[in-house]
Amino acid sequence: MNRPAPKPQVAILGTGLIGAAWAALFQHYGADVRLWDPVPEVLTATQTRMAAPLAQLAEFAPDAGPRGTLTLCDTLSKAVTGADLIQENAPESIPIKRALFAEVEPLMAPQAVLASSTSALTWSDLSSALRDPGCLITAHPFNPPHLVPLVEIFGIDPDRIARAEAIYRAAERVPVRLKKDATGHIANRLASALWREAVFMVQDGIADVEAIDAALVNGPGLRWSVLGAHMAYHLGGGTGGMAGYLGHLGPSQERRWATLGTPSLSDGVQADLIAGVSREADGRSISELECIRDTALIAALQARRTAPPV
Amino acid sequence: MNRPAPKPQVAILGTGLIGAAWAALFQHYGADVRLWDPVPEVLTATQTRMAAPLAQLAEFAPDAGPRGTLTLCDTLSKAVTGADLIQENAPESIPIKRALFAEVEPLMAPQAVLASSTSALTWSDLSSALRDPGCLITAHPFNPPHLVPLVEIFGIDPDRIARAEAIYRAAERVPVRLKKDATGHIANRLASALWREAVFMVQDGIADVEAIDAALVNGPGLRWSVLGAHMAYHLGGGTGGMAGYLGHLGPSQERRWATLGTPSLSDGVQADLIAGVSREADGRSISELECIRDTALIAALQARRTAPPV
Repeated sequence: MNRPAPKPQVAILGTGLIGAAWAALFQHYGADVRLWDPVPEVLTATQTRMAAPLAQLAEFAPDAGPRGTLTLCDTLSKAVTGADLIQENAPESIPIKRALFAEVEPLMAPQAVLASSTSALTWSDLSSALRDPGCLITAHPFNPPHLVPLVEIFGIDPDRIARAEAIYRAAERVPVRLKKDATGHIANRLASALWREAVFMVQDGIADVEAIDAALVNGPGLRWSVLGAHMAYHLGGGTGGMAGYLGHLGPSQERRWATLGTPSLSDGVQADLIAGVSREADGRSISELECIRDTALIAALQARRTAPPV
Repeated sequence: MNRPAPKPQVAILGTGLIGAAWAALFQHYGADVRLWDPVPEVLTATQTRMAAPLAQLAEFAPDAGPRGTLTLCDTLSKAVTGADLIQENAPESIPIKRALFAEVEPLMAPQAVLASSTSALTWSDLSSALRDPGCLITAHPFNPPHLVPLVEIFGIDPDRIARAEAIYRAAERVPVRLKKDATGHIANRLASALWREAVFMVQDGIADVEAIDAALVNGPGLRWSVLGAHMAYHLGGGTGGMAGYLGHLGPSQERRWATLGTPSLSDGVQADLIAGVSREADGRSISELECIRDTALIAALQARRTAPPV
């Protein structure tokens, strides 16, 4: 008889909004979770912040099995010692993260993985002060982390990357590997590129903020939720696929790229963006909008269960 | 007692893939549809091409009420005379479309709308030879038109735009207005901007084609199916909303824009794109992939019924 696989031991360092969402996710999917935050008040309030994500996960994935344990740790050592995965969510500051890593590394088990949730910084920014840079990966979630499956990964030790990916997959995440360290990883580079053109269209008077958002949500956004951008052009090429597309329309894409804009976030453009989003929000508060977003995300994820993306 | 509203009379000019999808959509939602194509063999095969879209619409929107009638017209005059909306799907050529419009305009009822499905051309390209340019709008659907709700609209006669929008809305489309004529309308400008960065990441070796598509589908694409890009930054700004976001992270967005790439579709890059999509397709044919896409789109649209986007 096989023994059941041991439950992953996951440490969450920094238990603000992102840390609490990670904690809820890992606990829901059966990992034992240890929480640590340098600010005692933030640490003790973590379970309050975890309540909504845990309730959403219970709705979305009721069959995930028994929850793991949750331990509030008053020292970094208690959180890190014996952990398989240490998910770090400190402020986006190179000195702060490096100082934390210098404390964490000596406490880590030899095969453990230190995973940074960093959005704005790169692996190279963060790894240089480590004795064993291979112990660090960047593992960037997409907000909200307990609902959006993507985790973008870069590191240099294939074994540690594979072990971390197994833990993310067990929590129904979709890890995606970068081949090379890059600011913005993949998804935020795509999002920045798209938003640059969106802001340009506002600046140039082509369309209003709310029209651009409506076009995205009812057009390419919907389609990109079931099919990647490259794959969309593959299908747009007819029976010739991507090769047919590039042969027929590659030159027109290059011409179109040349017509895309480079806006600046001037005071006037910022005012237009703020006014446009305010019209689009139509009196709904941030938390009301987040609630609508999360309900729609959960429904979209449930639809994927029976009809997965391409 | 009110009389029921008269059924819209819709003419479809050019009944290839896009025209057949439009025809299925309008007929399913109760409009009387007249089909015309300059090539008799294309015209007579239209109903065959409409079969799959009609079956998908019956699955997706079974409560749309009785179908409208369908008439194959052997002359342009029979199709256009008395039509409220004339949806044109001719090849993407200014001379071909202008020549067609010169024949159509004298046949149109005074309040009728001539709507071009053009993707690559603009209203200005197409309207200059018309006696009444106000009769023309561009009304660009997003593929596949009977499933993806977006219709991007530009024209100069507000009454005609409003009447066309009412007909699209009755077919559960989401019309979105441009304030100014623009190549690529809104959605294809956004798609081009995103794909430019995707191709750059392939060219620069940051990530493989299939990794970029997986990141998009499981990250920003999923999120953009429930929430626009501007609205996402509004929620990313915490309680300060868009103003807070711009204040804190506006400068970092401008810096990130400066790091985005400008790839070229060189032979080597094209080969990488073709090979990458081939790995991603994993032996599945174009029609198999389209079938998976459509099933996933229908499920995503059904999820929206109970949990609408922001």
